[in-house]
Amino acid sequence: MVSEDEGNVTDGRPLAEGAWDESDTVGIIGLGLIGGSLAQRLTARGVRVVAWNHRSHPYAAARAQGIECVDTIEEVALARPRVLLLCNPLKAMPEVLASLKPVIDRRATILSDVGSVKALVREQVKEVGLEACYVGSHPMCGNERSGFDAADARLFDDALWALTVDEGTDYRRFLTMARFVLETVGDRFIVVDDATHDRAAAMISHAPHAVATALINGLVASPDRDVAVALSAGSWRDMTRVALTDPARTRAMIEENSGNVEVLLRSLARDLNDFADVLHAADESGMVRFFSQGQPFRAFKAHQGRQRRLESASPGVAGVAGVGAGNEDVRRIDPSDWRSSFLTSARAGEQVVGFVSPWVIRVVPDCAI
Amino acid sequence: MVSEDEGNVTDGRPLAEGAWDESDTVGIIGLGLIGGSLAQRLTARGVRVVAWNHRSHPYAAARAQGIECVDTIEEVALARPRVLLLCNPLKAMPEVLASLKPVIDRRATILSDVGSVKALVREQVKEVGLEACYVGSHPMCGNERSGFDAADARLFDDALWALTVDEGTDYRRFLTMARFVLETVGDRFIVVDDATHDRAAAMISHAPHAVATALINGLVASPDRDVAVALSAGSWRDMTRVALTDPARTRAMIEENSGNVEVLLRSLARDLNDFADVLHAADESGMVRFFSQGQPFRAFKAHQGRQRRLESASPGVAGVAGVGAGNEDVRRIDPSDWRSSFLTSARAGEQVVGFVSPWVIRVVPDCAI
Repeated sequence: MVSEDEGNVTDGRPLAEGAWDESDTVGIIGLGLIGGSLAQRLTARGVRVVAWNHRSHPYAAARAQGIECVDTIEEVALARPRVLLLCNPLKAMPEVLASLKPVIDRRATILSDVGSVKALVREQVKEVGLEACYVGSHPMCGNERSGFDAADARLFDDALWALTVDEGTDYRRFLTMARFVLETVGDRFIVVDDATHDRAAAMISHAPHAVATALINGLVASPDRDVAVALSAGSWRDMTRVALTDPARTRAMIEENSGNVEVLLRSLARDLNDFADVLHAADESGMVRFFSQGQPFRAFKAHQGRQRRLESASPGVAGVAGVGAGNEDVRRIDPSDWRSSFLTSARAGEQVVGFVSPWVIRVVPDCAI
Repeated sequence: MVSEDEGNVTDGRPLAEGAWDESDTVGIIGLGLIGGSLAQRLTARGVRVVAWNHRSHPYAAARAQGIECVDTIEEVALARPRVLLLCNPLKAMPEVLASLKPVIDRRATILSDVGSVKALVREQVKEVGLEACYVGSHPMCGNERSGFDAADARLFDDALWALTVDEGTDYRRFLTMARFVLETVGDRFIVVDDATHDRAAAMISHAPHAVATALINGLVASPDRDVAVALSAGSWRDMTRVALTDPARTRAMIEENSGNVEVLLRSLARDLNDFADVLHAADESGMVRFFSQGQPFRAFKAHQGRQRRLESASPGVAGVAGVGAGNEDVRRIDPSDWRSSFLTSARAGEQVVGFVSPWVIRVVPDCAI
């Protein structure tokens, strides 16, 4: 058993160093929707932000909001930011990392990113040898717009971040990144490994985008298409909405996580064929199985709905079911296997909202599927 | 060529008899969400409504709104309604039809229904020998609630009805039903055959409901489920919304149209497997094909969006893209093959908003996928 205040996980310095300092700087590469929104939020909260964008057209507007815009990627690293966030498109990652490699201070700076796939980015980071200072992250926010013009600090209001770690991740660096999310940005997080993150993202976003695309493809291929659209209502509109957004963006997202999407689509195809067999045979037990299997998710959503109504009646923290002082709990992190402690918490549907000490976290809510 | 005013399609009486008379009555079997809303709308528009419900609990509220509630199904038919609408659940149809059979006046009354599948209802109508007075209908309205308490006359505001006909349908009866929808209810319609209706309904509603159910089934079966839900955003919420409604209702809906749903699910499964192959092989031309096939639907929706914005800038009839005097067109109906004329119009994305004469219709909009 390791005591809560034992700090020398890696190099003997106390873990309390992970706390944010008012003089700390944040570096941001890419002032698009996410990078721009985060930069705006941080400057509004009094944090110094040094940013670079591949084109300088948003610089005038960014500077007017107090964001320090520089001419090269190298200058961002040379500002010795406590956290340097890569908010550039994934396809630019190799070039950006190559520029950072010779100049980034591996001890002073935590390298992170906001990409929607994590295994691929960690590979790219390893290729340039920057893994020691890397903690992956994926803030769950965004909308269908893009670019600095669409950026809005409120996009990060009460957002959940997925932080990704592996066996090589130093707990102190993780802790600094975690406190950045909690205290500097004012958000919440869960901690998972890259593979779990990417499988989960494929399940709730990337594969459904492919399904929505396949649905509109099927419509267009049908001679009944215009009659069908005339008869369509909310179910069709909702199930195909994401197929209407820029297909090039959807394609890129799916390709970046293609292995996981492939597995899920084959599995869904199998389930749909099985259910077609059930329909064909009018198989009563198969019908019951198909329509009851998802019941735990229906119950979870109903519970979440009740929690939200309770909270809007007596507001705690807005927007998150179960968030609010009354629903908080604490979890001990096992220093000898902290990754598993966090993953267990995430798998139980918990989200981290604070630290009691470096080895004790505050979590919400106590509700899982 | 048959002249426009030639009226003796079937029995020598002029087609103008199809017009609604102020003394005409509407019969409604079933005061649920749809039957109740329609009854309320009709009484509010000054039409006499005689209604029956399998339980009498909504009668007090219905009577307070001017709806004449009776104790037996037979009494509805004996009121000699011009249109008698079956708004009962599909499973009650055989029993309701058996009660109507001995008492309905086949010359005075048009029998119709509001069911979401049409081939099955026509079969049931034929089984009791009432096909000569039957015109199928399916008003495209509703919400996730049910029962007379949830009924609301506004549900039928500017609603589109699918009217279904076959080789046995008499044009005069069809015309009476069409005018009932246009003039008495104040709505619009398209005319299709049962098979087209049921295939289209499977495509835009019944099969997508099965897909949404399969998606939440897959989530629940996954060890990543709680992490996945934590990472979920709008795409997951929208694509699974219909899986959260009463699964018994969804099951009934899918079973009633199981042949068409089966075909579509097998086809979708094939498309998803094909796309999984494309991902596996990183097949560039396959990727381009998958993401471009739905482009006509994306273009159609973008066009519809522009039309809506134009109309909200200079309002015509609310809610329907392309509706408004400026967008109306007329179509001639071929008396020797009127079913095909209407089907061609529906397949071109047109909706009927009025009659110029019995053989000339007014349609909106001129936009198709």
